Amino acid sequence: MRLSECSLNSATIRGASLTSVLDLAVDHGFGGVGLWRDVLDDADLPLNARRVASSGLRVSSVCRGGMFPQPTRQLRQARFEDNLRAIDQAHALRAECLVLVCGPPYDGNTASARAEIRDGIEALAPHATAAGVDLAVEPFHPMMAASRSVITSLREALALVRSIGSPRLGLAVDSYHLWWEDELGERIADAGDLIRSVQLADWMMPIHDELESRGMPGEGVIDMGRFLADCRGAGYRGLVEVEVLSRRWWSVAPAEAVAAAARALTDLVDPYALPTDNDTPSNRFLKMADNADSGQ
Amino acid sequence: MRLSECSLNSATIRGASLTSVLDLAVDHGFGGVGLWRDVLDDADLPLNARRVASSGLRVSSVCRGGMFPQPTRQLRQARFEDNLRAIDQAHALRAECLVLVCGPPYDGNTASARAEIRDGIEALAPHATAAGVDLAVEPFHPMMAASRSVITSLREALALVRSIGSPRLGLAVDSYHLWWEDELGERIADAGDLIRSVQLADWMMPIHDELESRGMPGEGVIDMGRFLADCRGAGYRGLVEVEVLSRRWWSVAPAEAVAAAARALTDLVDPYALPTDNDTPSNRFLKMADNADSGQ
Repeated sequence: MRLSECSLNSATIRGASLTSVLDLAVDHGFGGVGLWRDVLDDADLPLNARRVASSGLRVSSVCRGGMFPQPTRQLRQARFEDNLRAIDQAHALRAECLVLVCGPPYDGNTASARAEIRDGIEALAPHATAAGVDLAVEPFHPMMAASRSVITSLREALALVRSIGSPRLGLAVDSYHLWWEDELGERIADAGDLIRSVQLADWMMPIHDELESRGMPGEGVIDMGRFLADCRGAGYRGLVEVEVLSRRWWSVAPAEAVAAAARALTDLVDPYALPTDNDTPSNRFLKMADNADSGQ
Repeated sequence: MRLSECSLNSATIRGASLTSVLDLAVDHGFGGVGLWRDVLDDADLPLNARRVASSGLRVSSVCRGGMFPQPTRQLRQARFEDNLRAIDQAHALRAECLVLVCGPPYDGNTASARAEIRDGIEALAPHATAAGVDLAVEPFHPMMAASRSVITSLREALALVRSIGSPRLGLAVDSYHLWWEDELGERIADAGDLIRSVQLADWMMPIHDELESRGMPGEGVIDMGRFLADCRGAGYRGLVEVEVLSRRWWSVAPAEAVAAAARALTDLVDPYALPTDNDTPSNRFLKMADNADSGQ
């Protein structure tokens, strides 16, 4: 696929500054960036927003809001206020969504954690609507159920988002988190225009921990072309993010990791690529006619 | 719960011989053992079966059959023959089930792997029926989808088993593999008398790999009492296995690991414990009457 259809997530080059992320994305021709909040600083937010705007890049996502289950009312309130700040940041950066990492149980009780997540999203959603910021619930790989999110399948996340039914509430789908799910293609089709973010990372074997074992698209076992085709088939036309949390790739220079990400994305076939200058409908017709003439 | 209601799975003390597993189980008062095939040897199978029989222990499971997706016809045939041997072993040991670890995709294609798994079970099931051996499809944690099984939720496994509908085909439910699943309690209730095996291991944080990061029941984050209650509520009255694959516990002497497993199980409350000599219905009535008299 073309890099103008792709977004470089800052977590792929953890530790790099916002300026570095923007520069590397522009250098390689990415259409946008996904920004983790560790590269943002509220004190500098207007400056950051101007830098992003002047780069010409879109911000496909800000990560993260969420972490709804909290053991005390005070902690719940603190988290709610942090989520409001995340909405403000996403708004200032004109981000296409704020990703929600919904949070783990704090006491082993998955049912009450799920109930608190629903309550938390319902409380937050009106603020996102007022700010014009899309929220994207990201289902997480079940190996992170105890550390990051107990929302652990697209099927579950879709049911949650549908049942809340807020106009700005959608989904983030990440190949790494979801590739194992049965009937995944059907669930992606079902999610349709609720998909606000598509992220790619590959499953490498063996894993060495739950977070940092990922690979660039094509390095691992996931049928990435199929995943991308499913997302495009469901109607997703936004930027496709490369978000590779990898101890291995974090150990090389950021420029080298971004070059590898760019190669990996370029090698992927995007079935719904926008036509290039040479790939207009009339040119495609002429090419088909040529093929017909030559007996192909 | 009482250890007479529990089974010691040999993988909890990996490397121990069959004789050691049996001796340790008897010493602690376990009601049975679960046996991985690495402690069995076909040449000695009649001898092994006599040893097991004379120990007085039940064999709650033999592990494993399965691994159905294979890239060539020759490999599929070899696997089928190995699965027949596993049925023979389970039969000789009078095991209560043969656990099926269904296998990963060999080429990243999860859909074709799932189709091959269905075909493989359908081919194997009549042989299990003829031998009088129960087969138990074990849904695996999704972090093992690329290495051990692409059947990755109880919901999926239940649908698969139901749709095949063979009389000897059921399910193995393991807390470690399933604790993250949404509506798990409902799915366990739904599985009902299809449950042929219940296994316990706890989720420890952080994981250091996909296989060997487990803890004894109660060491980790899983609500083990709830899981056990759900299984008992679904009607499961068989032995409850402790199957803890753990680099940490494998590093101590087998006797120490089994003592820890025994303590962990004893600390669990089994809501459907069979009455002890002191806990007969009439004694329970007398106790209630005592409580009523004392105003409780």
